[in-house]
Amino acid sequence: MSLNIYLSGEIHTDWREQIISGCEGSGFHFTSAVTNHEASDAAGDLLGKEEKSFWRDHKSAKVNAIRTKTFVEQCDIAIIRFGDKYKQWNAAFDAGYCAALGTPYITLHSEDVIHPLKEVDAAALAWATTPEQVVEILKYVVSD
Amino acid sequence: MSLNIYLSGEIHTDWREQIISGCEGSGFHFTSAVTNHEASDAAGDLLGKEEKSFWRDHKSAKVNAIRTKTFVEQCDIAIIRFGDKYKQWNAAFDAGYCAALGTPYITLHSEDVIHPLKEVDAAALAWATTPEQVVEILKYVVSD
Amino acid sequence: MSLNIYLSGEIHTDWREQIISGCEGSGFHFTSAVTNHEASDAAGDLLGKEEKSFWRDHKSAKVNAIRTKTFVEQCDIAIIRFGDKYKQWNAAFDAGYCAALGTPYITLHSEDVIHPLKEVDAAALAWATTPEQVVEILKYVVSD
Amino acid sequence: MSLNIYLSGEIHTDWREQIISGCEGSGFHFTSAVTNHEASDAAGDLLGKEEKSFWRDHKSAKVNAIRTKTFVEQCDIAIIRFGDKYKQWNAAFDAGYCAALGTPYITLHSEDVIHPLKEVDAAALAWATTPEQVVEILKYVVSD
Amino acid sequence: MSLNIYLSGEIHTDWREQIISGCEGSGFHFTSAVTNHEASDAAGDLLGKEEKSFWRDHKSAKVNAIRTKTFVEQCDIAIIRFGDKYKQWNAAFDAGYCAALGTPYITLHSEDVIHPLKEVDAAALAWATTPEQVVEILKYVVSD
Amino acid sequence: MSLNIYLSGEIHTDWREQIISGCEGSGFHFTSAVTNHEASDAAGDLLGKEEKSFWRDHKSAKVNAIRTKTFVEQCDIAIIRFGDKYKQWNAAFDAGYCAALGTPYITLHSEDVIHPLKEVDAAALAWATTPEQVVEILKYVVSD
Amino acid sequence: MSLNIYLSGEIHTDWREQIISGCEGSGFHFTSAVTNHEASDAAGDLLGKEEKSFWRDHKSAKVNAIRTKTFVEQCDIAIIRFGDKYKQWNAAFDAGYCAALGTPYITLHSEDVIHPLKEVDAAALAWATTPEQVVEILKYVVSD
Amino acid sequence: MSLNIYLSGEIHTDWREQIISGCEGSGFHFTSAVTNHEASDAAGDLLGKEEKSFWRDHKSAKVNAIRTKTFVEQCDIAIIRFGDKYKQWNAAFDAGYCAALGTPYITLHSEDVIHPLKEVDAAALAWATTPEQVVEILKYVVSD
Repeated sequence: MSLNIYLSGEIHTDWREQIISGCEGSGFHFTSAVTNHEASDAAGDLLGKEEKSFWRDHKSAKVNAIRTKTFVEQCDIAIIRFGDKYKQWNAAFDAGYCAALGTPYITLHSEDVIHPLKEVDAAALAWATTPEQVVEILKYVVSD
Repeated sequence: MSLNIYLSGEIHTDWREQIISGCEGSGFHFTSAVTNHEASDAAGDLLGKEEKSFWRDHKSAKVNAIRTKTFVEQCDIAIIRFGDKYKQWNAAFDAGYCAALGTPYITLHSEDVIHPLKEVDAAALAWATTPEQVVEILKYVVSD
Repeated sequence: MSLNIYLSGEIHTDWREQIISGCEGSGFHFTSAVTNHEASDAAGDLLGKEEKSFWRDHKSAKVNAIRTKTFVEQCDIAIIRFGDKYKQWNAAFDAGYCAALGTPYITLHSEDVIHPLKEVDAAALAWATTPEQVVEILKYVVSD
Repeated sequence: MSLNIYLSGEIHTDWREQIISGCEGSGFHFTSAVTNHEASDAAGDLLGKEEKSFWRDHKSAKVNAIRTKTFVEQCDIAIIRFGDKYKQWNAAFDAGYCAALGTPYITLHSEDVIHPLKEVDAAALAWATTPEQVVEILKYVVSD
Repeated sequence: MSLNIYLSGEIHTDWREQIISGCEGSGFHFTSAVTNHEASDAAGDLLGKEEKSFWRDHKSAKVNAIRTKTFVEQCDIAIIRFGDKYKQWNAAFDAGYCAALGTPYITLHSEDVIHPLKEVDAAALAWATTPEQVVEILKYVVSD
Repeated sequence: MSLNIYLSGEIHTDWREQIISGCEGSGFHFTSAVTNHEASDAAGDLLGKEEKSFWRDHKSAKVNAIRTKTFVEQCDIAIIRFGDKYKQWNAAFDAGYCAALGTPYITLHSEDVIHPLKEVDAAALAWATTPEQVVEILKYVVSD
Repeated sequence: MSLNIYLSGEIHTDWREQIISGCEGSGFHFTSAVTNHEASDAAGDLLGKEEKSFWRDHKSAKVNAIRTKTFVEQCDIAIIRFGDKYKQWNAAFDAGYCAALGTPYITLHSEDVIHPLKEVDAAALAWATTPEQVVEILKYVVSD
Repeated sequence: MSLNIYLSGEIHTDWREQIISGCEGSGFHFTSAVTNHEASDAAGDLLGKEEKSFWRDHKSAKVNAIRTKTFVEQCDIAIIRFGDKYKQWNAAFDAGYCAALGTPYITLHSEDVIHPLKEVDAAALAWATTPEQVVEILKYVVSD
């Protein structure tokens, strides 16, 4: 039984690659939003340019949602990553989405943001501070 | 038919009061998290003190979740407010929770944060910039 | 036990009024989209004007969806009315929405459109040609 | 992870073939109603002829619903196509069905019908005007 | 908290009246199909006469389903009664419907039909042989 | 996409075999209750003998339900067969179960029982009188 | 908005009364299994005596389930109490039931049983050691 | 069609191995919690040591829940085993979880604990006293 893992959040470090390579051979299938920032922001442009930034963002965010909504709903476990920069409200949004569906998720963030993330952590099944810990947990979860 | 409106997010301005008083007589029932910051942070203390800040936050966040989870699931419409300070990941979490349940929500935020909120706005049914606009929409929604 | 009836579709004749007055005293509670065409088309304007007609329509349609989605999901029975003019895709959309939720609905349309409405009628529990028939069925449904 | 795409609506142009051939090699699985108009209208005849056109249509529409209901519920993404002729209420019905299930869908229609389709577009995650755009979006959705 | 009780099945004896009068004052709300056999069979006639008996039955059964589907889905507990005559497949249908929804139901039938009802009884929470027993159980269920 | 077909009801004629062999090569997967009458009645005996016939039937019916509940819930389409003998309440129970789940089903029965089966037929998507018709419909449903 | 609180578990001390009287005036509605041990064990006897203890227990447990299943599913919050004696598997069963439904629950037990209750506590939103603490939390949850 | 069987409960005897080897060749896929007691208790340690036993247990129980929640929700049938020692509240918790989801389960326990397990048995589809009986039932369930 192969489990689907959705990797949500921060796109400026290589935490996804660390988890994927650390889990190699364990039979997981990983999915994610499009993590190329420019491509993601331009996702709606192929349907026609917009002058107002709100509508450009809106169109792109919806095109991206076709992917993320599908993958989040199909995943068995989500990893929700908060880096030390940017608002990252989409990561918290994904966490809330998983919580409502009852999908188990693990948060990945440093000690600095414990307090503002307390609601997100309260609905998580684990809090990790490094990608290595996530790898260890995932391997434990499917161990014989 | 009285509709339940959940007011989620920022607790440092009086946007909740503005919406509630603006809607007076329209038959809405408003709910919200405990918005007293200190009381909210201490919600778990009555079950025993914790030394580690993570567990203190965790206990309090879970006690608060008894309230917020119940009210979010019972609401017909949610208003998700993002102010110009703090992380406010709990607001984005509530938005994701509503999105997964299919509960309509309206975001309330300034133009400054359009880009980081694009995923949250993409699943919203309206974006307002002032509490007055929220009041107008809510009144329109239940107009004869 | 009072039943909620959602009245969906055509807004150019007085079929809603006929059903509501015909059912007076039977204990139903009727809901509906905003049926003032101009008000409905302008529903999103209070959140700021749009130049492109697509986005004006989009904003208004979403504000209206806050109302219609809520009322459709809360109704026990829907009446889906197709007149002899206009596209009326929103009525067929509501029918599909009800079908997916398992909400019983009755279609109300003339014989002229039997063929193009066959998929919509296939999922309906009754097809009526006059508001009087709808009134009769609704009264029968709650008869002692 | 192969995604199922349901192609709903107009049957008089080759938009389905364009999308399917354009997506070749991308790993999608496409489903659809029976698009042979005569076969579709006659689907119920094999269970016995009907004299009244309503019942002939009714029987056929229900036999077709065994297929369409199954495929719509199993799809990950739907494409809802409105051509410039006919009522096409079944396409709007499918859109409403997807909306209630939370299944992402993309509409495909010309600018001429923006206004009557505003409710259908309001619940869509994208609006395309050409099959090529649909192909581009679908490929983007599953890009690495 | 008042509980809704749906009374399904046989319409030729006064078991409904016995249960309703036996429970008087216990705060239950009882619902049921239309139990006037002729009115029930003619329920669809008000939408136009049919020549074929199949379609007459079909139309009436669907009009009746508007009522029964609604009441079955709203009930907290169902009583499923099988008499000693007739096929009574509608009672078994209601039992299956309740089983799928997880709605508790009590069967009411004599010892003679234990074997053919074993699947229906297997999903029931109680089997009673007299209306008095049903009354006793219902009163027990809401006792202080 | 292979569809699962559940064959429910009468066990005294070879209608199952006719459908299965008629559909050979069409890619369906067929499931069914245990159709060996004696084995089915004795299904609970391996957990210890019972003296009372009610409990023997109860135990066996529940052991059988492990299979039937699982297969009914996993099927895409059900065929509900009523023969001309016996009560066959389990078939009507399965029909109600499918109706509540929204699973499409086809009834298979002669004209003689149209009236007592009207509620079961009202929720069906087709009524066939011969296994050949069922085969034809199933093949149509998955035709290219 | 009055919340329903289900009180599950131990029946040998007066913890229910303490919580109910402590919460007086806070607008909660409390439900519970029948807590009279003898009446509960005899709940099925009114449907006929059984010789085997398994079937006597089985019948009574099912009659009781009509009540408990209904009240557990209708509650907004459950309190799951484990005393220091007996197996109390029904309390853990109720906790699992709530967890699957996503219903928030609070456990009430002494420190002695932390380890064997770790799975039950892991899905709880709070762990209290005294009825007073439960009262405090409940009052906090609905505070203005 | 391969069925997933979740084996829940007691970890001190070899009942799991007996069932798995007894079912060899029948096409089942078995899952389970991590049954190494020490590894299970230490599951959360890899995320940082805790001083308080409650939090150590809490962290480990949640990490284990990532596995058990996923496997319980994915199983078609669960076997819930109660040995003659220990509290085993997690087994009763899993039973309640399955009951709420409508997942069929079989209990496996000796006669000694019939009375305290009556609520758990009431929602089960079979009660076995030996692993051999479970094997026999499972083989029967998938027999041709």
